Amino acid sequence: MNVSPKNEHIPRATIQRLTTYLQVLEAMHKEGVQVISSEPLSRACDVNASQVRKDLAYFGEFGVRGVGYYVSYLLEAIKVCLHANREWRAALVGVGNLGRALLNHREFRRRGFTIVAAFDCDPFKIGETAYGLEVYCTKTLVDKVPELDIEIGIITTPPERAQRAATQLVEAGIKGILNYSAARISVPDTVFVEYVDFFHQIYSLTFNISNRH
Amino acid sequence: MNVSPKNEHIPRATIQRLTTYLQVLEAMHKEGVQVISSEPLSRACDVNASQVRKDLAYFGEFGVRGVGYYVSYLLEAIKVCLHANREWRAALVGVGNLGRALLNHREFRRRGFTIVAAFDCDPFKIGETAYGLEVYCTKTLVDKVPELDIEIGIITTPPERAQRAATQLVEAGIKGILNYSAARISVPDTVFVEYVDFFHQIYSLTFNISNRH
Repeated sequence: MNVSPKNEHIPRATIQRLTTYLQVLEAMHKEGVQVISSEPLSRACDVNASQVRKDLAYFGEFGVRGVGYYVSYLLEAIKVCLHANREWRAALVGVGNLGRALLNHREFRRRGFTIVAAFDCDPFKIGETAYGLEVYCTKTLVDKVPELDIEIGIITTPPERAQRAATQLVEAGIKGILNYSAARISVPDTVFVEYVDFFHQIYSLTFNISNRH
Repeated sequence: MNVSPKNEHIPRATIQRLTTYLQVLEAMHKEGVQVISSEPLSRACDVNASQVRKDLAYFGEFGVRGVGYYVSYLLEAIKVCLHANREWRAALVGVGNLGRALLNHREFRRRGFTIVAAFDCDPFKIGETAYGLEVYCTKTLVDKVPELDIEIGIITTPPERAQRAATQLVEAGIKGILNYSAARISVPDTVFVEYVDFFHQIYSLTFNISNRH
């Protein structure tokens, strides 16, 4: 499969839309759809058809003229684009409600995104078991991250503990951080950070509802 | 306070960045920062300074030449822009792990985003209490939504139950839906939908880690 990003900057929004295409194509594949043209695909994704074609063109030629896209082929191609065709091993820091929800998230496991260890700094939580994982002390991150071959850190601590968690993850040699806490964190340029801020979507919604014409 | 969006389309990305500015300014305000210029603000937000100025310019003139921005004033202005300066009443459908995490989310309450009722279709959950709320049967949405003056529905069901939840919320007269389930939903054009898909950020991260140069 010839999937290679062209030698140009791929917009962040393209990566996000590819995730949507992946979700929609997975559902279509499950329903037995074998071929789809860009119009119905774009409608199902709430994206216009030329945008779909443009996004996919960053990675290669996936459509067949007069036919459309083969669902299973496009699905595999997008997985390759997103590096979603391999296992990613993650450590979760902060075993509260949200942390537990993520530990038990079916979609994470199904997509090869595996949380292999959970950490907390609360002595009452350390040593207990959460969804099959023993909760370790955050001080052991520095040993566990290399030992368990962990590349990604997930922060689900309260906001006031997010920076400490980030610093410990960085010291342990993590490559990227997914930050679910409601706090900005500061890390070296060599570590990638993605913020999952629920208010991005909440305020998009309240803005749209309020400015409805 | 003169905050009114100009008569032009405001990009979705601007709304998302305003949420980031809000978060950063709240932290600065808490630390006692009174005035900030666009350079350090933009650094703290990971956005370039001209983008910050452009985003804010959609709503009005908030900077003072030679001074910068007054933190508390800008904070209020952004809240007005995002309609975050009022209470929003929401119904949550799907009292699983993620649903419980949201019911107990301190940031939601602090920002005036109040989940006033929780719903589930599981007879074992209906009638129990989750973080102070009685869990109602989803069939009662049609009565509870108008009765409790609910404008927003939050879907935290498994993917296979998301469409039914959406349909019930729409029938109950909801204005917007925040969909945390891993499924696309279809609703009339009059109802706004925002997807909170954790894989948007996960795949941005795995893409960046894999394409590091």
